[in-house]
Amino acid sequence: MASGGPEIEQLIQLLARLPGLGPRSARRAVLHLIKKKEQLMLPLSAALDRAVLAVKSCEVCGNVDTTSPCSICADPRRGESGILIVVEDVADLWALERAGVGQVRYHVLGGVLSPLDGVGPDDLNLEGLIARAHDYSEIVLAMNATVEGQTTAHYITDRLTGTDIRVTRLAHGVPVGGELDYLDEGTLSQALKARTVI
Amino acid sequence: MASGGPEIEQLIQLLARLPGLGPRSARRAVLHLIKKKEQLMLPLSAALDRAVLAVKSCEVCGNVDTTSPCSICADPRRGESGILIVVEDVADLWALERAGVGQVRYHVLGGVLSPLDGVGPDDLNLEGLIARAHDYSEIVLAMNATVEGQTTAHYITDRLTGTDIRVTRLAHGVPVGGELDYLDEGTLSQALKARTVI
Repeated sequence: MASGGPEIEQLIQLLARLPGLGPRSARRAVLHLIKKKEQLMLPLSAALDRAVLAVKSCEVCGNVDTTSPCSICADPRRGESGILIVVEDVADLWALERAGVGQVRYHVLGGVLSPLDGVGPDDLNLEGLIARAHDYSEIVLAMNATVEGQTTAHYITDRLTGTDIRVTRLAHGVPVGGELDYLDEGTLSQALKARTVI
Repeated sequence: MASGGPEIEQLIQLLARLPGLGPRSARRAVLHLIKKKEQLMLPLSAALDRAVLAVKSCEVCGNVDTTSPCSICADPRRGESGILIVVEDVADLWALERAGVGQVRYHVLGGVLSPLDGVGPDDLNLEGLIARAHDYSEIVLAMNATVEGQTTAHYITDRLTGTDIRVTRLAHGVPVGGELDYLDEGTLSQALKARTVI
């Protein structure tokens, strides 16, 4: 099993632990890195070193950035809309930012309630959300459309009843570019119920 | 597009250039790295730094290792069999080593002859092969079963005619665990021609 010494073997094993890479693709990736030492391996090594030093978790919203509070929490224009979008994960925040949803702020829960996996309210960044919710006029619950995501959304809605904060959720419907034929019945019936005038 | 500062954005872009990773999976990989900073990001950063310093290309066979000559070329037992296996790429060498083909040596061409892509004999490690071939009694041509691979095999065979070196190639046939129904006609007819007595 001697594929090129312990340094290379260890690099393969670490890369294989990234999501989307297995042992085989990690090996291909390492060979690619070695072939492109100047153009890719050295810059990647330097970028990783810099990121290790720079990356912080935002103390306000849970986003990942190089400053804390993160650039979104630190931007006053982001607060003017009064909209706070609650997401499960930093990846969801990034996805919404790529979609260009506008001048909003976020709150990253760091997961969803899941009694089966032993995840309770104390394991999520929920108290932080309740504490800062009062600074916003609308809370958009943008959890995934899974059972756990919707359970978490219900929990938050319950915690915020009695306040004058408007609690909303993302619309269900046909994905843009999606074909009806490939959609599940739940999505189709939701899309029909929520139909809009052209 | 502000997903977490320039350091993180740069890391995503570099990882996205690895084979098997695109922009989306590179983003997921970076988030995973950030979440597992102590267990994965720091060790990966250190492993990459070490590999950058340690990795060498073997001056004899073209293998990638931390020494040159590589551990295979430096091992005298490897020379006793008199077998030299010629492969296109380091990945093929590693694949044969994983298969446990025994005490053999290798020669990495670094590609195949491909007039369409402008790859001629001078672009490959062919002269190195001809020079060291005389130290071996058998040369196994283990190029891929593509047109370019077979063209390269013919070229090497031509260059070695007139010597007393035995030139062989890998057997074609049904892959172990493969189903006949899914195999192409070329493989099936080769497998029938080369049938063996049980």
